Amino acid sequence: MALLFQSAVDNANWWVTELKRRLPNLDLRVWPECGDPADIDYALVWKPPLGLLADLPNLKAILSLGAGVDHIFVDPELPVDVPVARVIDDRLTAGIVEYGLATILAAHRRFPEYAQNRNKGEWRILSQRTAEETRVGILGLGVLGTSLAQACVGLGFQVAGWSRTSRRDPLPGGLVHHHGNDGLENLLAKSNILVCLLPLTQETEDILNRDNFAQLPKGAWVINIARGAHIVDDDLLAALDSGHLSGAYLDVFTVEPLPQNHPFWRHEKIILTPHIAAVTDPRSVADQVVENIRRVENGEVMHNLVDLTRGY
Amino acid sequence: MALLFQSAVDNANWWVTELKRRLPNLDLRVWPECGDPADIDYALVWKPPLGLLADLPNLKAILSLGAGVDHIFVDPELPVDVPVARVIDDRLTAGIVEYGLATILAAHRRFPEYAQNRNKGEWRILSQRTAEETRVGILGLGVLGTSLAQACVGLGFQVAGWSRTSRRDPLPGGLVHHHGNDGLENLLAKSNILVCLLPLTQETEDILNRDNFAQLPKGAWVINIARGAHIVDDDLLAALDSGHLSGAYLDVFTVEPLPQNHPFWRHEKIILTPHIAAVTDPRSVADQVVENIRRVENGEVMHNLVDLTRGY
Repeated sequence: MALLFQSAVDNANWWVTELKRRLPNLDLRVWPECGDPADIDYALVWKPPLGLLADLPNLKAILSLGAGVDHIFVDPELPVDVPVARVIDDRLTAGIVEYGLATILAAHRRFPEYAQNRNKGEWRILSQRTAEETRVGILGLGVLGTSLAQACVGLGFQVAGWSRTSRRDPLPGGLVHHHGNDGLENLLAKSNILVCLLPLTQETEDILNRDNFAQLPKGAWVINIARGAHIVDDDLLAALDSGHLSGAYLDVFTVEPLPQNHPFWRHEKIILTPHIAAVTDPRSVADQVVENIRRVENGEVMHNLVDLTRGY
Repeated sequence: MALLFQSAVDNANWWVTELKRRLPNLDLRVWPECGDPADIDYALVWKPPLGLLADLPNLKAILSLGAGVDHIFVDPELPVDVPVARVIDDRLTAGIVEYGLATILAAHRRFPEYAQNRNKGEWRILSQRTAEETRVGILGLGVLGTSLAQACVGLGFQVAGWSRTSRRDPLPGGLVHHHGNDGLENLLAKSNILVCLLPLTQETEDILNRDNFAQLPKGAWVINIARGAHIVDDDLLAALDSGHLSGAYLDVFTVEPLPQNHPFWRHEKIILTPHIAAVTDPRSVADQVVENIRRVENGEVMHNLVDLTRGY
C-alpha cells in the first residue's frame, strides 16, 4: 500500500515520522519522488500541481492536508470518481479561534492605530466601544466559524453569522444566524468587524467585493482567514483608500507566497501574515489520515468526506 | 453635599452628566474649581495633586476613579482617617480581559515578529507552540487577574497565577496557584508569557526587575497592565537587549504620559499603548460611586473599601 505525500509548505519529514509510527508498512513516497504512478493508492496533498492526481491511475482516495479542498478542486483534470476527505481537527480549530480572537480584539481595541501613534511618539487616548457595542459578523458557520463565534459571544461581543444555505443543526446561544443573499445584506450592514471563514467555492469566490464592502458600516474591519480568492484585491484597496474601511487583517492570498510587487505588502492599513492562522499538525491529524485509509481499505466511507457538488 | 471631581484623564463632563442624573442635588465641583475646601464631603479622584486631599478638612470619603489606589496612597499628607474606596466594575474587568487576551494571543502567535517580517517583505512561516504548550503566568489574583486567568484557561493555555499571600477563596479550575517568594520563583521559571496585574504597593514596586527577569525562560514575553512602577525600566531594556526576553507589551509607565525622550518609545521589542487597557466608564461606575456616598451618609461601610495596611 503506497501513499504519495505532496506539499510545498508542510514538513514532509515530520509527516513521514508520524505516519510511519502508525503504519510501519506503509510505502511512503514524498513528491516529486513518486516512483511508478500506478503504485499509489492514496494521495495526501496541499495545492497539488495540476494534473498530478489524474496521473495516478489506481488512486483510491485523496486526502487534503487542510480544512479546505479548493486547492484540489481547482484542477480541471481531477478524477471525479475518487473520494476526497478534508481535515477537521481540534488543533486546526484552536488555531483559527486564536488567530480570529487575536485580530478581532486588536481591531476592537484599535491596536493598529495605537501602533501608528506610537511610531509618531504620540500619547493619545482614542475613544473605545465596549464589546457589547461592537458587532462581529462571521461569514461561514462550519466548525471553524461556529467555534470562533462562540468565543466572541463569550467575550460579550454582538455576534452574527452567515451561511449560504440555512442550517438545521443548533448554533451557539447568543449567535444571530443569517443566510442567503438577503441575510448577507443584513449581516454586512451590521458588522463592525467582518471575518471570512467560508469554504472557497464558485459561489463564494470574490464575495468580498466592492458592492459588499460598500454595505459594511464606515470604519469597519475585514479579517480574512479563509482563502485569498474570497477577496477582490483591488476592491479592498479602494475601500481602504477611500477611508470606508479602517483596515484589514489578511492571512491568505490568491497567490501564495504573496508576490513581492503586490500592493498589500506596503499598504499601511493592511496587516498580513503568511497563511499561518491554522497549520495542520501531523501529531494530531495523522490519526484521521490513518483512520481514513483503514476505512477505504475496509470499504467504509471516509470521515470528513467532501461533497463534490457543494465543493466542501 | 458637595463632591470634588479631579482627573487629568477622565472626561469631567461625562462624569458630571452621569452623577447629576443620579443625584440631582449634588453640589458638583470640578477641580481646580474647588470653591471653599471646607464644603467638600467627597473626593472622586485620579492621581490627585500631592496635598490636595489634606486640604479638604471635612472630607468623609475618598473615591478612586480606578481599580488601583496607589495614585492616592503616594501622597505623604493623605488624611489617614478618611476611608478610601476603589472601583470594581464589570466593564473595567472586561477591558482588562480584552487587552490581556489580545496581547497574550499576539505574543503567542508571534504577531510582532510577523509584523517585522512583513515590513521587510519577508514571507516566512515561524514555528508555533500550541496553547497547551504555552505557559501563561499571571501576577496578581484579584478580580482582574482571576478573570483573565479564567479566559486563558478557556483557550487551552497552561495558566498559573501568583499572589503575595495565600488565598482561601476558590480559584478558577485549571489555574495553578503560587504564593510567597518561593511561589514567585516557581511561577517565573515556567512563564512563557508573564502578565502583571498586581496592585502597586511597597511590596510589589520594582517586582519586575533584573533578578526576576533572569528567572523567566529565554524568549519570554512580559505584559504590564498594572502600574509602571512595577517595572524597573532599565532592567527591562537590558533583558530585551540581551535577547533573554522576546518583547514587552506595556500599557502603564512610571511617568504618564511617557516622556518623549524615554527609550521605550523607540525600542523595537516594546509595543506600548497610552494606559488604555481598561478605562473607567462613568455609565457603569457612577452607580457604585452614588451607592458609596449613600452608605457613608447612612453610617455604613463603603463597598470596595481599601485596606490601608495592605494598600489595596
